[in-house]
Amino acid sequence: MKEKTPDMRRSGCPINVMLETLGDTWSLLIVRDMMFFGRTTYNEFLNAGEKIATNILSDRLQRLECAEIIEKRRDPDDARKFIYRLTERGIDLAPMLVEMILWSDRNEKTDAPSEAIKAMKKDRDAFVAGVRKSWAKGNQA
Amino acid sequence: MKEKTPDMRRSGCPINVMLETLGDTWSLLIVRDMMFFGRTTYNEFLNAGEKIATNILSDRLQRLECAEIIEKRRDPDDARKFIYRLTERGIDLAPMLVEMILWSDRNEKTDAPSEAIKAMKKDRDAFVAGVRKSWAKGNQA
Repeated sequence: MKEKTPDMRRSGCPINVMLETLGDTWSLLIVRDMMFFGRTTYNEFLNAGEKIATNILSDRLQRLECAEIIEKRRDPDDARKFIYRLTERGIDLAPMLVEMILWSDRNEKTDAPSEAIKAMKKDRDAFVAGVRKSWAKGNQA
Repeated sequence: MKEKTPDMRRSGCPINVMLETLGDTWSLLIVRDMMFFGRTTYNEFLNAGEKIATNILSDRLQRLECAEIIEKRRDPDDARKFIYRLTERGIDLAPMLVEMILWSDRNEKTDAPSEAIKAMKKDRDAFVAGVRKSWAKGNQA
């Protein structure tokens, strides 16, 4: 189930549609944790550098799941635990996240590893293809 | 003055840096209004399709100005009024906004004009270059 049907939206503008799903200061950090750092568990997201609060993390995981950006499964190695993974829709955020990273790199002081930035700048499409390929292989599971 | 100095940030991750400046459901709609629709006044932003509330609009304009994404000037034709324009940092958001639009186009039902989407898909870099060129000429003033 998607979070909102078209007639529940403020408008059908594609930028608005994206912002109604992911427009807050936390959701895309969780997507980042999965996409670039291979994090899959609640505790891994909780311990990311930005110190997200537990209630915000729980809320955002639920919203991301409702919006079909991520999916939640029982950990096959420990049925008491859950693991979270990006869906196709979530992986498809890679080009946008790369442009966010490049904007910050051009306009702000950041801690981004220079090797990764260099690879993105040299061939953005190849970088995104690499992310998709790594997910297709299940390397980030 | 930038909104936050590096040591005031939750982290120096480039995605986080961007989200601390623009991570909410409204700010990028104002950037969109300026970039793609040539809107420059408070009333034009207020009357955009998403029906932003006046207090939110005032707050976001101020935050965008502090973050040097937009600048506010007296209208040369009417000194009682203000006009808002994107700065270089603001115009530089074009590649990211294009990827947001393309994500929504691929994954959601939107009202985006198909001609614009077609142009972005055909040659994203040329589309972004066109936006930059139009701003350099001052066509969107």
